[in-house]
Amino acid sequence: LLDELNKIATKNILNKSFIGLGYYDCITPPVIDRNILQNPGWYTQYTPDQAEIAQGRLEALINYQTVITELTGLEIANASLLDEATAVVEAVIMLYRAASEKKNRLLVHANAFPQSIQVLSTRAKYLGIQLDFFSSVPTTISDDVFAIFYQSPDRYGELIDIKAIQNIKLSFNCPVICASDLMYLVLTKPNESVDVCIGTSQRFGVPLGYGGPHAAFFACKEEYSRKIPGRIIGASIDKYGKKAYRMALQTREQHIRKDKATSNICTAQALLAIIAGSYAVYHGPEGLRLIAQSIREKAVQFAAQCQRLGFQLRTSDFFDTVTIALSDLNQRKTLKEACKRVGINLNFSDCDYISVAFDETKSEEDVLVVLRCFEEIADKHVSTDLSIRMRSELFDSYARSEAFMNQNLFHAYRSESNLMRYLKSLETKDYSLTTGMIPLGSCTMKLNAATEMMPISFAGFSKLHPYCPKDQAKGYEEIISKLGKNLCHITSFDAVSFQPNSGAQGELAGLLTVKRYYEDKGDFKRNIALIPQSAHGTNPASAALAGLKIIPVNCLADGRIDVTDFNSKCDRYATEIAVFMVTYPSTYGVFENTIVQLCEKIHEIGAQVYMDGANLNAQVGLTDPNTIGADLCHINLHKTFAIPHGGGGPGMGPICVKKHLSDFLPQFSLSLEDSVFSVSAAEFSSASILLISYAYIELLGSVGLKNCTEIAILNANYIRKRLETYYPILFTGEKGNVAHELIIDCRPFKKSAGIEVEDIAKRLMDYSFHAPTLSWPVPGTLMIEPTESESKSELDRFCDALIQIYHEMTAIAENRADKDDNMLKNAPHPLYHLLSDEWNHAYTREQAAYPLESLKNQKFWPSVARLNQAQGDRQLICTCDSDVLTENLTIE
Amino acid sequence: LLDELNKIATKNILNKSFIGLGYYDCITPPVIDRNILQNPGWYTQYTPDQAEIAQGRLEALINYQTVITELTGLEIANASLLDEATAVVEAVIMLYRAASEKKNRLLVHANAFPQSIQVLSTRAKYLGIQLDFFSSVPTTISDDVFAIFYQSPDRYGELIDIKAIQNIKLSFNCPVICASDLMYLVLTKPNESVDVCIGTSQRFGVPLGYGGPHAAFFACKEEYSRKIPGRIIGASIDKYGKKAYRMALQTREQHIRKDKATSNICTAQALLAIIAGSYAVYHGPEGLRLIAQSIREKAVQFAAQCQRLGFQLRTSDFFDTVTIALSDLNQRKTLKEACKRVGINLNFSDCDYISVAFDETKSEEDVLVVLRCFEEIADKHVSTDLSIRMRSELFDSYARSEAFMNQNLFHAYRSESNLMRYLKSLETKDYSLTTGMIPLGSCTMKLNAATEMMPISFAGFSKLHPYCPKDQAKGYEEIISKLGKNLCHITSFDAVSFQPNSGAQGELAGLLTVKRYYEDKGDFKRNIALIPQSAHGTNPASAALAGLKIIPVNCLADGRIDVTDFNSKCDRYATEIAVFMVTYPSTYGVFENTIVQLCEKIHEIGAQVYMDGANLNAQVGLTDPNTIGADLCHINLHKTFAIPHGGGGPGMGPICVKKHLSDFLPQFSLSLEDSVFSVSAAEFSSASILLISYAYIELLGSVGLKNCTEIAILNANYIRKRLETYYPILFTGEKGNVAHELIIDCRPFKKSAGIEVEDIAKRLMDYSFHAPTLSWPVPGTLMIEPTESESKSELDRFCDALIQIYHEMTAIAENRADKDDNMLKNAPHPLYHLLSDEWNHAYTREQAAYPLESLKNQKFWPSVARLNQAQGDRQLICTCDSDVLTENLTIE
Repeated sequence: LLDELNKIATKNILNKSFIGLGYYDCITPPVIDRNILQNPGWYTQYTPDQAEIAQGRLEALINYQTVITELTGLEIANASLLDEATAVVEAVIMLYRAASEKKNRLLVHANAFPQSIQVLSTRAKYLGIQLDFFSSVPTTISDDVFAIFYQSPDRYGELIDIKAIQNIKLSFNCPVICASDLMYLVLTKPNESVDVCIGTSQRFGVPLGYGGPHAAFFACKEEYSRKIPGRIIGASIDKYGKKAYRMALQTREQHIRKDKATSNICTAQALLAIIAGSYAVYHGPEGLRLIAQSIREKAVQFAAQCQRLGFQLRTSDFFDTVTIALSDLNQRKTLKEACKRVGINLNFSDCDYISVAFDETKSEEDVLVVLRCFEEIADKHVSTDLSIRMRSELFDSYARSEAFMNQNLFHAYRSESNLMRYLKSLETKDYSLTTGMIPLGSCTMKLNAATEMMPISFAGFSKLHPYCPKDQAKGYEEIISKLGKNLCHITSFDAVSFQPNSGAQGELAGLLTVKRYYEDKGDFKRNIALIPQSAHGTNPASAALAGLKIIPVNCLADGRIDVTDFNSKCDRYATEIAVFMVTYPSTYGVFENTIVQLCEKIHEIGAQVYMDGANLNAQVGLTDPNTIGADLCHINLHKTFAIPHGGGGPGMGPICVKKHLSDFLPQFSLSLEDSVFSVSAAEFSSASILLISYAYIELLGSVGLKNCTEIAILNANYIRKRLETYYPILFTGEKGNVAHELIIDCRPFKKSAGIEVEDIAKRLMDYSFHAPTLSWPVPGTLMIEPTESESKSELDRFCDALIQIYHEMTAIAENRADKDDNMLKNAPHPLYHLLSDEWNHAYTREQAAYPLESLKNQKFWPSVARLNQAQGDRQLICTCDSDVLTENLTIE
Repeated sequence: LLDELNKIATKNILNKSFIGLGYYDCITPPVIDRNILQNPGWYTQYTPDQAEIAQGRLEALINYQTVITELTGLEIANASLLDEATAVVEAVIMLYRAASEKKNRLLVHANAFPQSIQVLSTRAKYLGIQLDFFSSVPTTISDDVFAIFYQSPDRYGELIDIKAIQNIKLSFNCPVICASDLMYLVLTKPNESVDVCIGTSQRFGVPLGYGGPHAAFFACKEEYSRKIPGRIIGASIDKYGKKAYRMALQTREQHIRKDKATSNICTAQALLAIIAGSYAVYHGPEGLRLIAQSIREKAVQFAAQCQRLGFQLRTSDFFDTVTIALSDLNQRKTLKEACKRVGINLNFSDCDYISVAFDETKSEEDVLVVLRCFEEIADKHVSTDLSIRMRSELFDSYARSEAFMNQNLFHAYRSESNLMRYLKSLETKDYSLTTGMIPLGSCTMKLNAATEMMPISFAGFSKLHPYCPKDQAKGYEEIISKLGKNLCHITSFDAVSFQPNSGAQGELAGLLTVKRYYEDKGDFKRNIALIPQSAHGTNPASAALAGLKIIPVNCLADGRIDVTDFNSKCDRYATEIAVFMVTYPSTYGVFENTIVQLCEKIHEIGAQVYMDGANLNAQVGLTDPNTIGADLCHINLHKTFAIPHGGGGPGMGPICVKKHLSDFLPQFSLSLEDSVFSVSAAEFSSASILLISYAYIELLGSVGLKNCTEIAILNANYIRKRLETYYPILFTGEKGNVAHELIIDCRPFKKSAGIEVEDIAKRLMDYSFHAPTLSWPVPGTLMIEPTESESKSELDRFCDALIQIYHEMTAIAENRADKDDNMLKNAPHPLYHLLSDEWNHAYTREQAAYPLESLKNQKFWPSVARLNQAQGDRQLICTCDSDVLTENLTIE
């Protein structure tokens, strides 16, 4: 397979890219490449929601947030969003919702990146936001404007004069969203008028990957801190007062707020944000400045020579991208051919201009290569003297003069030895699949095989620009086409779109596809999403963003959908229901036997069935969404198809649909003349990780895939059988079986021993385990999904742990252990506490640390005691310690 | 650089190899590739001589030893040797030395691998061993035969009849050495007559790498256990009785026995043995059997068809290699051209035969491809029906029928999840450069940068067979040629040989080069090596193996060479001295100021100066061996030039010489008609790791290399300055400085506090450090080498630890702490002991575990308490637990 993929990789043509538009070639420092991107210790981590065993990536993410706040000059940054285009939308939604209800007009910079405008236009329509485009910053605005959005450097590379923005901000108190470039921000003073600054952190060491995955950054003023979309990492303290990190302000999120959530986005691009943050840690402010200056220098050299050659520059003030007016078709053709001959790509996406973007991989020789292409349509010859300079008042007057990134962090790890050890020390604090099972119900933490992961590092896949000419991406075309066919085969659907770059985006894209279907039929009345109470929180959150009204369907005491309520609501809203969103097997982990009946009813009333793909791992090869009766579904490639969770992202959420919906799937165009339905910044969004799912399917084949599903179900039932004597199993099918996951009820122990389900989750850490899904979908329970990747020995280790915990709880219930000072309430037990000279607990250190003898041989240790969540939300601290540098610790 | 190396890699032509002869294409399971070979947590480990922080690789190596004993049926195996050819020599030397003095004749199988015969012939000459070659096993032998050496399968793939060997063994009680093939041994009953079995473990998942590095295995009967060359890992217990592994029987080794050592080999191919062992753990006996059977099947398919085509088979009984008689030059040429056309390599090294070897990567399609080449010189057409079978009585009658590898180990990790976790759990037990500094004097544990390591995994470098036609290895030629030039430039010498695959082999090859130089001049009297008492133990061990007599030179009280004694010995042995072996800077870590004078004196008497390359890290760019006065030196590429230590190997020890010696450097030929001077199995031995040194030099350039040397010296002097108030610095130069390493004297604390230097070394583990070199070259001292890779922060962390230890010792000396029950005597403190309910020490847990506050944030924990060395040597256990499998734990 690897040989074959190597061959396919060579079908992608790696022309040097000068395209830009938010995607730049860059150098992933090999120490980061090898120790993070290619290291299962990092990429197999789950979202850090068990903070005590996730301090490593939490610290790495807070480092990233610190980089963003330092460079944008804003007070608060989140742990990243999916891509720059969706980050624009998230910023707009945040300010739209924060504004008074009358305001629904957004001023939009017409020269923002075209992909951002496409996604913004698509999304604005369903949010009821009116977009007014401007070319130069207006001097006056109307009352119903809730924000202004500009991009600098813009799509042409032009820098926008801060003063114009400052004026409008001062005069009208209108919130300002700025899309900017991290590398440019290294050299420039942040614009204080900006309320929200967004962009991509891709060029901080993350491979192009034909579009992703990359982390978009999102920073804003403190006043918006409780309204930010996406994850935020914050500092707090643990039970004993030690500093500790955790995800902050989770009350904003979908699993709690459902359709009232700040966003439907529940993931971050964690792994990529960690890479970008580590890139900044490695280079430090001096290193970043050198890189940014060198990029700017190439652009200046190029621009000066272009002028000399007689070309008219569109960009007078620029950082890395220079745009030349060139609309003559013959000249464009000649230039294009010259570029093709020497193997370079420029940005030809605007028919009046050509843009050339420089990045840290480009040398003076590269500048000359581009110039020689332009020479072919010029009267003069290129001079090899690149010392001609250009002045840029705008650039110079806003140059950053004060020191930044002064935290010790950005000065202590600037040698490979130091950074490697720092990264390793962070890795050792985090539980990942390399440590043991992560039995998270609904999250399907399966093996991410090394064979599947290796191809993303093949140059032929990692170095391709998403907007390169299609004929240079034949390798990707082959992969994407075959993977698409396979996914259609697996779901029995007819068409697929790879544009959604997360499960939540898949839901949204799917719902919008349905809306477009009805719009096309002239049916504008269907505006209701019927959603069972037991659905994932993202379902209502996504439906809300698709402009749908949510009508919940009740569930019975046993968790199943209340068919009576369902039928009555179907009948009542028969002509208004657009879609029924359902998960199968149900979120309770059983193959609900009414599913076919429910789908039939929906079709009777002329609506669509949307299947949430979260539990597809229990269907593959045994049944499929189409057979069950769905019209479309999204697929969590990061759950069912082996893309690793990366400590909280990336994910991929392609949607598969029946033929009748296929014309309404997402589209892609960089030309603003095509008004397209577009949900992310690149046609195949995080294209490079599609390779992982491709490899997974190729390795297993249809027999293997089916076998996986069977073993996943078998594993869940093995656990059920072993645990049922100790813990009530909450839901089972008619024959007493569960599907691929199971819910164990922990509420009895609350009554008998005062033990909360969280205590059990934390105590599991002392047994060297990551907790299952906590209190979802039923409060007070644990939802366990072992997946097919776990061996019997690991399942037994897990059952042994839960059984021993049962005995610990029984001891409390029987008053053999203290109700308050017991091993569960105090769990987890970090070493610094276990080893402290004072030990006043009612149990011994050994009982706390080694409840099972086997732990003495191998145990993963939590690095802090239980987090104090309230403290962290009360006093939000989202950047790393601001110990200011006292001494440069590296020899350089 | 990586781009450039990628381009160079494509200059190597990757024809499919059917050459065999001890090198087979194979599949490195990606889980092993990614988690061991590409993981600095494994490859930056040092030799496991601090067992308490090396239990992971010790276990992995004992697993490897267990695989070897299980497959060979012998009682004891070592942790690997450099390559198969040198393993043959080591086996011969062991039996030669064990035999009565009169016996000096070895019976040698003429059809053993030619490279083994070449190396054996070279080495035998200088050991006084007479080689008698046989083609079929003799039925009678003379009195002076000390052993018989045969290979099965032999160079033609032919299996040797065990009965013939058994007969001679029974009749004459002559020890038997067998070279065999691990994959063949999977399918066959071990020959009980064999006393020593050797071979390569390369095909157990280790990439070809144009010759290496690979691990040669060495197994023997228990009676030879105390005479085995190389490292042996053994089980013992720790201070509190917990099972623990360590290197066994170290009293056999050079640092203790010098010229009386069992071998000059002080390294193993640890990393490669670990890979091979893990390959067996992953596949288990059933998996190995399937692989071996599939290989054999291809060979049978090929042989049967060849017969059908009318070719005459030389091999009647074979495993994987089939040899066809073909001496007609035209036919050979036609066949060769046909092979070239389809991109395959067969073994043409014998002018009467063609051999074709199969391996686990070959498919039936590959069998047909080879057959179609033969078709071109046959009268008949190839049949695509491969079902024709051949019988092989010999093969069948010795087929392995009983179960093997029954240990749980070989059944518990047969899924990727399980193996990944097992490998990670082993990794976390081991201190490596990813944990912190490893300040081992004379061992130069510097950064192994990821950029330098990546190219060894490029297919163009990793998949080349060492005996492929030269015109297919142009990429390697370019690398080796440029690296050779760079090394000559750095040493100011004129020629280089890359054949020695360790530092010790470099010494031996260098000394033999000198001997050959004198032989050529007709000077047979020069048989003395003049070696200072302070020299590395390998120096006299290598000299002894080169047939030289060792005359030691005294050292003064301050450790420097006694010039008076030196001069008098030079004068006394003026016409007998061949070589003076010297290390510079001296083994005491100072730039000895008499060095030039010593070299001049040697040249006056007409002898050669051999410089030991161990301390070259303090010369590069500042001075060089030629300038100082040496005639030749070896270079430890694994010390000075960034090849990682791999937990105790691989290494590379190329030798550089002045022009007058260049004609006498090692040679290479597979044709036994050329009797060549050859010291290892491949022309460039462990060729693939040369890429690491190549990259290191290219990345630094001459300015960078010099800068490294300066910083290495600066770092050592920084430590000296910080520690001199607390520890006497044993040797310094005239200005009070040290070179790149320093010796601190710990003997005063023995007197004042009863603390041994070993106690300090073990206590350093509690501070999260690897000990420096212990009691060498001066007993009771620590030799510290920080290298240029360490930052000031790490140097300070180290000094802080040693200063705090000083205070701990002072407390003992001043009776504030107990003389026996103190933190040094009880060090290191593993968690299982620290956390045990009983704690009866005179100090607290916290003092033991966290002597410095910073350790609470990040600490590496020893996994066992101090090793009981004596117990392990008394009762030698060199295989893993023999818990027999009770249940298969994986679902497969």
